[in-house]
Amino acid sequence: MESQNIFDDEVFFEGYRELREGANFNDLLEQPAMDALLDDVSGLRILDIGCGYGRNCASFAKNARSVVGIDISRKMLNVAEKENSASNIRYIQMDMADLSSLEGPFDLIYSSLAFHYALDFGRLMKDCHDLLVPGGTLLFSQEHPITTAAKYTQTRYVKDDEGRVSFKISDYQDEGERHVRWFVDDVIHQHRKLSTIISVMAKSGFEITDCVEPCPTKRAVKELPRLRNDLVKPSFLIMKARRKED
Amino acid sequence: MESQNIFDDEVFFEGYRELREGANFNDLLEQPAMDALLDDVSGLRILDIGCGYGRNCASFAKNARSVVGIDISRKMLNVAEKENSASNIRYIQMDMADLSSLEGPFDLIYSSLAFHYALDFGRLMKDCHDLLVPGGTLLFSQEHPITTAAKYTQTRYVKDDEGRVSFKISDYQDEGERHVRWFVDDVIHQHRKLSTIISVMAKSGFEITDCVEPCPTKRAVKELPRLRNDLVKPSFLIMKARRKED
Repeated sequence: MESQNIFDDEVFFEGYRELREGANFNDLLEQPAMDALLDDVSGLRILDIGCGYGRNCASFAKNARSVVGIDISRKMLNVAEKENSASNIRYIQMDMADLSSLEGPFDLIYSSLAFHYALDFGRLMKDCHDLLVPGGTLLFSQEHPITTAAKYTQTRYVKDDEGRVSFKISDYQDEGERHVRWFVDDVIHQHRKLSTIISVMAKSGFEITDCVEPCPTKRAVKELPRLRNDLVKPSFLIMKARRKED
Repeated sequence: MESQNIFDDEVFFEGYRELREGANFNDLLEQPAMDALLDDVSGLRILDIGCGYGRNCASFAKNARSVVGIDISRKMLNVAEKENSASNIRYIQMDMADLSSLEGPFDLIYSSLAFHYALDFGRLMKDCHDLLVPGGTLLFSQEHPITTAAKYTQTRYVKDDEGRVSFKISDYQDEGERHVRWFVDDVIHQHRKLSTIISVMAKSGFEITDCVEPCPTKRAVKELPRLRNDLVKPSFLIMKARRKED
């Protein structure tokens, strides 16, 4: 089964590009938290799953031995090759369902906000495990299960009479596809329970070493007031793990 | 700082006792999930933190080498000693903040729905680590962070025009005391982010081996229709971990 390639949709692609150029959740909330969890990458062989524009690949490449960036979207990789190329970066158009066709090993697998598109998390974790050296690091962020849970897409933030804001969660126990409107109709995310993420990682040979639900700083909220919603409930889940010895 | 001892409140104690005698969330949802994660306890030295009536202690004691059950409530332990005593069980009235005064080691530390009362989770994890043998197991359940998050206690389940039920979450990022009404006013729970629980466990020398957010079976919902709410969002979080070698 193939993953949805929404990033090659013209309307989505342009909308996303515009979003990433202004103040946004990635740059103000998710990326700083990911950076804080990233150890020294000097000399490492790195795989970036869902590399998008290749910004992180370019940053890794300054010190890493080699970087492979994969993405399902040709349009994204066209930008990556134009704006973020280097002699030790290789960009490959690939669905993350096909990871097992890649040649490893890698010392670090990094993925920013892509795994909630993965159809089969168990297979993804197995592939990541097999591509990493023993002791290697997996660091990924994804949409938080609290955020992906609800099946319907009506107003989810609600205010009570005293102005206090809540977020409406539902359908948490029912894992699977969620159809959301994001620039275009019907972007498909996969809702997985937090316990599924953790137990599948543990059973796939990973030792979880850290977990972060990024909280916006006052400064970030000043720049992008909508970030205040992330005090109500987290948008992102970040997991860091070590591939165990066999 | 001492923990609240709400279970010795007369009104609370009687209300709780009545609750546990009818169809309830513990017996239909949390305990079956805990049982499923429990390995063979034959010959083990077991510590049960917040043992309450001692039902689990009595069950462990049939095969375990020894069982220590601690609880902050004298009233609970009076019931335990009367209804669930055995020659290899020792009940001790103790705040879980004082765990370091216990003599170990234990092979298994078990705790059902007590850790959301703990004031200092870092200290609790350190104490559990130090009381366990290397390779020993920590298995605990607690209120789910989604459930403990909101600071105010108004109606949290809401129905939309089409009858779909949601649960209102808020204040997730703001950890600390939550005052809830449960039989009596002002039962104090501690809200901790899921990422805090996981990262503190990892940094305290535990390898997380499993995680469960119990989902009610159809049969359980038939017996207690209110359990249907647990399809909307989870009430409980269960973590299983192994104390790493030093």
